[in-house]
Amino acid sequence: MALSTAFTELFGVEHPIALAPMGGSAGGALAGAVSRGGGLGLLGSGDGDRDWLARELSVLADEGAGRPWGVGFLTWQIEIGAVARALEHRPMAVMLSFGDPSPFAERIHNAGAALIIQVTDLEEARRAVDLGADVIVAQGTEGGGHGARHGRSTLPFVPVVADLAAPVPVLAAGGIADGRGVAAALALGAAGALLGTRFQATTEALVAPATAKAIVEGRGEETERNRVLDIVRGSQWPPQYTARTLGHPFLDEWRGREDALLASPHARQAYRDAVAAGKIPALPQWAGESVDLINDLPSAADLVGTLAAQAEEALARAGRR
Amino acid sequence: MALSTAFTELFGVEHPIALAPMGGSAGGALAGAVSRGGGLGLLGSGDGDRDWLARELSVLADEGAGRPWGVGFLTWQIEIGAVARALEHRPMAVMLSFGDPSPFAERIHNAGAALIIQVTDLEEARRAVDLGADVIVAQGTEGGGHGARHGRSTLPFVPVVADLAAPVPVLAAGGIADGRGVAAALALGAAGALLGTRFQATTEALVAPATAKAIVEGRGEETERNRVLDIVRGSQWPPQYTARTLGHPFLDEWRGREDALLASPHARQAYRDAVAAGKIPALPQWAGESVDLINDLPSAADLVGTLAAQAEEALARAGRR
Repeated sequence: MALSTAFTELFGVEHPIALAPMGGSAGGALAGAVSRGGGLGLLGSGDGDRDWLARELSVLADEGAGRPWGVGFLTWQIEIGAVARALEHRPMAVMLSFGDPSPFAERIHNAGAALIIQVTDLEEARRAVDLGADVIVAQGTEGGGHGARHGRSTLPFVPVVADLAAPVPVLAAGGIADGRGVAAALALGAAGALLGTRFQATTEALVAPATAKAIVEGRGEETERNRVLDIVRGSQWPPQYTARTLGHPFLDEWRGREDALLASPHARQAYRDAVAAGKIPALPQWAGESVDLINDLPSAADLVGTLAAQAEEALARAGRR
Repeated sequence: MALSTAFTELFGVEHPIALAPMGGSAGGALAGAVSRGGGLGLLGSGDGDRDWLARELSVLADEGAGRPWGVGFLTWQIEIGAVARALEHRPMAVMLSFGDPSPFAERIHNAGAALIIQVTDLEEARRAVDLGADVIVAQGTEGGGHGARHGRSTLPFVPVVADLAAPVPVLAAGGIADGRGVAAALALGAAGALLGTRFQATTEALVAPATAKAIVEGRGEETERNRVLDIVRGSQWPPQYTARTLGHPFLDEWRGREDALLASPHARQAYRDAVAAGKIPALPQWAGESVDLINDLPSAADLVGTLAAQAEEALARAGRR
């Protein structure tokens, strides 16, 4: 018998595990595999690019086996039209992260989809509750990729969001990469866990092989939150968000000198040249502190079952008297 | 039946809960109350000051009801003589934090006490194992008071330390203030939790009433790690350690300008004057992100039982199928 929570009941999924809708890399194959494995797969649509979404929805239709799925957007980057287009495909959930979700909430609810809002502090959590979020994702600063510059750590953040949001179910995000982390999320009062970095290192993720390898080999203490790699690649991420990445030569060169970097077209050109010459990867290697726990490259569908079994085992062990 | 772990078995205590040996505030009354409540009370001896230790050991003898107890030191601040004096009182454990524990390990083991070493990264964890630590405390950056400037978050740090240290038991520290956090620690593979901030807000802690009140009223997002309050009060903490504190006027004034502060005798004089005039508390208000979860001022002896009962309940709820 699988672990049962308000999250598994809401979506009719087998396991309290969701895929973080990582922009670009959480495509139809990965979201479909997570859903097929018994979790909730969320497409990482980012800015809602029409061609990307159409292609990945088509892959998802093949790979998802008709299981519940959803789609996630970067709130600061989307327009209502992108959300409307995604809703035509009848996702079970739409997840909004980083920015003001209020212009989109009614449209999502009216389409019959669940509204999932990711939050990084208690004020955002309060606003998500007021907006009628059906699920709230409490994201800790140890997570990979983007998050609040002044973020909270997952362990003390999740229980206070759970108290504030009750009875709205909360997912814990940030720092979770094995079943012990999923179990800890549930113990903290979350109804499940949302994992990103762990799912980057799977056979279905849309990432460069070198990036998957770097995650498998990486160490948590090599990760750090920075804006350097957003600035140098000309990304428009708002300044209140940093991203946790693995090490990078441009990070070593520009760490702590963001203002100078912003003023340096030369650095941005050098970055483009280095990418073109194959000297650095095309994208930053986004990764959370949990990379220490990632040592293999399984199928995401199998991984969901493994995580769930580990979580059950961890809870049984922890509850020993 | 109480939760049983390698930690409870090693010390013969009822609950997998330890008191962080907070310098000065974890005196005999608090350590004794935690031990009486079924946890492991650890005196916060800091630099091993002879008079403080003699007085608090005498209080502990009255309050501890003959239960297991220990004593903690700041490794960078002590001499072997202080450890030897403490060992004469036959503590069941000596805990060393922040600095090189190797000069003290043999003396502690020869006296028959358990050696507990607190670590903030994986290299320290490896050295603690090599040194024969009987228990390793994995401290996350969300914890209150001192810790590594570049620390890890508790949730992803604990499982990797547990894997590295096995079969040596690990305690999770940082961000834990209720039974859900204790349950999460166990789910992550720890054999227990070590709590600081939560025990500051108890009737037995040696803290100013205003500090206990500030912890009860404080919010996690008001805490931040800084060196400012160490520098301005003339503390000799090594620069690789910062402390998480509640807000403070001198922190607002000097945040991000540590070098200038080091060079300013005027600022240190102004701080002393403000303390003398009662305008600011005599000590920084050390507190972790978990202050959100602290809303009362119980007896520490009762609190241990409450935390343990909450942890059992959280694990039972999380394991529901």
